[in-house]
Amino acid sequence: METNNYLQILRDVKDVAFATVDANGIPHVRIIDIMIVENEKIYFCTSRGKDFHQQLLHNNHVAITGMNKNYQMVRVSGQAQRLENNAYWIDRIFEENPSMNDVYPGKSRYILDAFVIEEGEGEFFDLSVSPINRYSFSLNKKPITLKGFAISDACIGCGKCMRNCPQQCIVEGKPYEIIQEHCLHCGLCDENCPVKAIQRRKTI
Amino acid sequence: METNNYLQILRDVKDVAFATVDANGIPHVRIIDIMIVENEKIYFCTSRGKDFHQQLLHNNHVAITGMNKNYQMVRVSGQAQRLENNAYWIDRIFEENPSMNDVYPGKSRYILDAFVIEEGEGEFFDLSVSPINRYSFSLNKKPITLKGFAISDACIGCGKCMRNCPQQCIVEGKPYEIIQEHCLHCGLCDENCPVKAIQRRKTI
Repeated sequence: METNNYLQILRDVKDVAFATVDANGIPHVRIIDIMIVENEKIYFCTSRGKDFHQQLLHNNHVAITGMNKNYQMVRVSGQAQRLENNAYWIDRIFEENPSMNDVYPGKSRYILDAFVIEEGEGEFFDLSVSPINRYSFSLNKKPITLKGFAISDACIGCGKCMRNCPQQCIVEGKPYEIIQEHCLHCGLCDENCPVKAIQRRKTI
Repeated sequence: METNNYLQILRDVKDVAFATVDANGIPHVRIIDIMIVENEKIYFCTSRGKDFHQQLLHNNHVAITGMNKNYQMVRVSGQAQRLENNAYWIDRIFEENPSMNDVYPGKSRYILDAFVIEEGEGEFFDLSVSPINRYSFSLNKKPITLKGFAISDACIGCGKCMRNCPQQCIVEGKPYEIIQEHCLHCGLCDENCPVKAIQRRKTI
């Protein structure tokens, strides 16, 4: 699947969780609507009176997640920009999401500001299968941050990681290898490796 | 309703969004299960290899949200503590959530650490009605942070706020008054007040 397909899952779920950070470094999360998805961009809006709006202006990093009825989950993180030409975007959002008129009738819609996430990265999870499937994707070519674990050449081939893996997603080899698209990132292989041949793929 | 009733909505939704902040001050959010709710406390778990776990150890502030099929949404924010006696709590979590055995079979469950949110505050939203209903609640008596707006004695009674309110939740009086349980916190009254008699109820 391509990025727009993953984002379309969020648009279809529609009610997704948006996380922000306030001026004190504390996380906040609320469920709002994804209003438009196109060209690997996510459009949403919020009103200028809300804490959410204040948080976006202070720190525009956002994280989004939603899951559909088939237990397919999408996560996206990126930076939200307030859109120029706000009235145009609010009108378009209301045209594509007419139920917004029930909440903000008439001209009250213009208390909303429209935002876009143009660049970001995401992960898709299919939790309906065993082992799970996961894939990383990028919005408008932002580089993808590696997550999880990898087995280095220090591997002695004892097989302890493979036997312990709850997802059975480690295969024999020199070195043994983690099948990344099935990995939970649980870290059990790392804790059990007798020669510390397993490392995180990024520093967090 | 009481706090445990609101938390039970999250437990019934089960798959809820958990937001955290990483060491760089960036938000992250994922959908996980609420494992146990009792005595106004929320229990959950995550494995020691996950970024989520690292983030919790670095900054234990979390924000949670979930919405049920009746468009009732609950938000909670608080601080998560790692539980002593981890094996006891993981065993209890698996007993009450047996499908966890499909993901972490056998002894692999002990790669999970159990956490509890003992104190926090939350909001309940019923979005199925118009105007919406919202109520604040507290976990184990944490003081509730006021949100939204209030009209001060500087009000001249012009009624502009009442006429503009998209939720029609402002009533006449000296001063005019916002019916807080129906308010979206959109801020349209504040932007339109000719004498700046409307203020945020807290500094954010």
